[in-house]
Amino acid sequence: MQSAEKIHSAQFLEHQLQEVTTLLEKQQLEKSLVQRGPSTNHELVEAMLQNQHQARLQEKFAHLHPADSAAILESLPLDQRKTAWDAIKNHHDGQILLEVSDAVRQTLISGMAAEELASVASKLNTDEIADLAADLPKRAMLKILRSLNGKERKHLNAILSYQDSQVGALMDFGMITIRNDLTLKAITAYIRKLGKLPSHTDKLFVVDQHDKVQGILPLQRLLTHNPSQLVADAMVTDFVRFQVDQEAAEAARAFERYDLISAPVVDNAGLLQGRLCVDNILDFIREKTDEDLLTQAGVGEEEDLFSSVWKSARNRWGWLLINIATAFASTRIIGFFEDIILQLVALASLMPIIAAMGGNTGNQTSMLIIRSLALGQITPSNIRRLIKKELTLALINGIFIGFIMGLLSLLLYKDIALSAVMATAMLINLLVAVVVGLGIPLLRHKFGKDPAVGTSVILTAITDSMGFFIFLGLASWFLVK
Amino acid sequence: MQSAEKIHSAQFLEHQLQEVTTLLEKQQLEKSLVQRGPSTNHELVEAMLQNQHQARLQEKFAHLHPADSAAILESLPLDQRKTAWDAIKNHHDGQILLEVSDAVRQTLISGMAAEELASVASKLNTDEIADLAADLPKRAMLKILRSLNGKERKHLNAILSYQDSQVGALMDFGMITIRNDLTLKAITAYIRKLGKLPSHTDKLFVVDQHDKVQGILPLQRLLTHNPSQLVADAMVTDFVRFQVDQEAAEAARAFERYDLISAPVVDNAGLLQGRLCVDNILDFIREKTDEDLLTQAGVGEEEDLFSSVWKSARNRWGWLLINIATAFASTRIIGFFEDIILQLVALASLMPIIAAMGGNTGNQTSMLIIRSLALGQITPSNIRRLIKKELTLALINGIFIGFIMGLLSLLLYKDIALSAVMATAMLINLLVAVVVGLGIPLLRHKFGKDPAVGTSVILTAITDSMGFFIFLGLASWFLVK
Repeated sequence: MQSAEKIHSAQFLEHQLQEVTTLLEKQQLEKSLVQRGPSTNHELVEAMLQNQHQARLQEKFAHLHPADSAAILESLPLDQRKTAWDAIKNHHDGQILLEVSDAVRQTLISGMAAEELASVASKLNTDEIADLAADLPKRAMLKILRSLNGKERKHLNAILSYQDSQVGALMDFGMITIRNDLTLKAITAYIRKLGKLPSHTDKLFVVDQHDKVQGILPLQRLLTHNPSQLVADAMVTDFVRFQVDQEAAEAARAFERYDLISAPVVDNAGLLQGRLCVDNILDFIREKTDEDLLTQAGVGEEEDLFSSVWKSARNRWGWLLINIATAFASTRIIGFFEDIILQLVALASLMPIIAAMGGNTGNQTSMLIIRSLALGQITPSNIRRLIKKELTLALINGIFIGFIMGLLSLLLYKDIALSAVMATAMLINLLVAVVVGLGIPLLRHKFGKDPAVGTSVILTAITDSMGFFIFLGLASWFLVK
Repeated sequence: MQSAEKIHSAQFLEHQLQEVTTLLEKQQLEKSLVQRGPSTNHELVEAMLQNQHQARLQEKFAHLHPADSAAILESLPLDQRKTAWDAIKNHHDGQILLEVSDAVRQTLISGMAAEELASVASKLNTDEIADLAADLPKRAMLKILRSLNGKERKHLNAILSYQDSQVGALMDFGMITIRNDLTLKAITAYIRKLGKLPSHTDKLFVVDQHDKVQGILPLQRLLTHNPSQLVADAMVTDFVRFQVDQEAAEAARAFERYDLISAPVVDNAGLLQGRLCVDNILDFIREKTDEDLLTQAGVGEEEDLFSSVWKSARNRWGWLLINIATAFASTRIIGFFEDIILQLVALASLMPIIAAMGGNTGNQTSMLIIRSLALGQITPSNIRRLIKKELTLALINGIFIGFIMGLLSLLLYKDIALSAVMATAMLINLLVAVVVGLGIPLLRHKFGKDPAVGTSVILTAITDSMGFFIFLGLASWFLVK
């Protein structure tokens, strides 16, 4: 490939996708032409065409980085994706399967035999096999386990024993370990003998005979320090390490803060278990972010853009059913006040505003709190100040927005008493919203739950119901006889 | 510091913050005791105490990584933050200012003289000065510019000429360049003479006499290849590079896809301009994610947790005012149907459900589309299939949810005609929601705008108004005489 092409850009990928699509469409067209054509030798011609097309697809994908191949497969509709995958699945080294999203991986794996999967897996590292494990059928997994040696099986089991959110699940085993009583020259010779270092090797791990980590030796020092120096004298002893059962999110923060490329992962006794690298951290951050965004929007899990309508529907119904329930519950409060609405119908058009504004301000508060909790900025020592500040802010916002609301409704309905009720209800509901917007994430955090999950649903349910209740309640007390 | 403490965790940071807070509170207490005590020698005692406290704070922060110091300052309320900063500001090398959030940086810088700022900046690299530039007062910036040499000034101007979203704004100048006609042995000797490599140096950039990038030489190869080999033979010519004016988000995707640590940044002629490293990419991703989340919740920009109430209020009013406007506009439609509500008051309690469910399903669709657009998965060749799929999904959802809604309202009001109107309005509004949820991001993308910005506000405004209009419109047509 011309290196000048390698300025990576969205256009590059779009262009490749377009070419693959053209190939696939041409193939489809030729196939249907043969089938409609004169009936002699159908099968022979079709088989020849098939071979030709597969060769073309293989050639096309052979020039692409596995991550780009993965992106292209993700962007292809199911039938085209299957055709392309059938052509290339035995000509790649398993990296493509690692790079595609979980939802798309299932569509690719479902068409492969256990033997094919086992042969693909044989070219992968154990930490990469672990990434696939959840999606592999049992038979393929057994085959793969049988092909591993004792150490590899131990590694695989280690990774699989941790939850996705733990450091242990993200580690790999591509670490180079050395002893501290050797000279740098000896280490350099050792590396030269190895011939190749695992990717992202920016440092070697110095361990004692029990595999306890004593320090790290940055590659830089190998190049710049005196070759006759001992590892013990050249190594760094003040370094960042992680524990296997630590939260991966914490490790991600540490990679950001300390600008790490790789770091040792240890168990409770300080013994080396594996290595954590910035590429896995980047993937983790992206997945977590996507998951958070989709969960917030009520899409159950990562969706394959082209999965069947039924599958997508099931993925989204959970959330919609919860919303039906809360929407119904909060509007039951309106039902309770129907007499009052009949006496003053303007209430019907004004009440949704009170509810909506409560939801909006509550969301602002809860989002800031959730973010500050994630950053570890909220502590017992500053929480009171924070609550006081947000409440003061709600009071000011309430008076300000209440005033605007009162004014607008006065212009519309020329009814001072109604405007006063509108302004008061707005103020009270904004205070309620802030208390709830602070309370839910703080309480969830206190009890060790993810403060982001479900906060907005509960918040909206409460601000809606309270909004209707406060507004209609005040109206029935002050406005109607 | 004991290396055993260095297992980075949230507890570690919380513990440090607690210690700093205790120091600061003790200082406050002692100060007030002296002021209330017998009146002789007030100033002398106060000054002594002051020195003692500052020394203690300096010692505490001296042991912390700048990123941890920054996190602690961010978590301190304004008055305590000021006290801590006054104690340490002349004893650190500017890294803390780089690590704090924009909002917090302003509170720190506002208390510093131009001379202090210039002296801090003199210890920073030009790309780091560029990060601070936006927050520095003009006088300090002039002082800093005067202290730079010609090359540094050129670098600084280069970075500042790019927008935050472009690769050029994220690059640094810590690259090591070499010629291709030297042996690896000569390069090793050169590095040994340099004594130290910039952080994140995993490869050297091979350039010709015009600074045109010809290849990269991974440090690994220096260690493993034959020392007598020429750079020209050992270098990699198929490598990823970026253009100065490229979107940073695109570069971030490439770092994820290709697991990069550093990469050359070139201009349109292929001449080396700088270097892009994974640490800056990580920071960029985090900032972009935070910004997206906060924008979605309607918090204008990153807020200092402890900024004044007025400042926070102003930061949030913009969004709330927009919401007041859209909420008012959509409820005006209800005002238009007040006669009908008077005839059938059940409509008042049912209408908010139609509106809310429209907003929810529309949001699901738009979030998926926004994400797929960001991943570059949507292309002219697959867009039709996508639209068809989402519309089919909306139809199924509409029938399903409409049915549930109709059933629930039948149970409540025992009115078959009303239930039918409810179900039909739900179906139609879900279809409207999906069209809007697809349409807004796709159109914004088509016209080169960020598809995420503002989508949810416009979407909710439309699904609310249309929800009220469809439901009350159908009701007035079929239900009331």
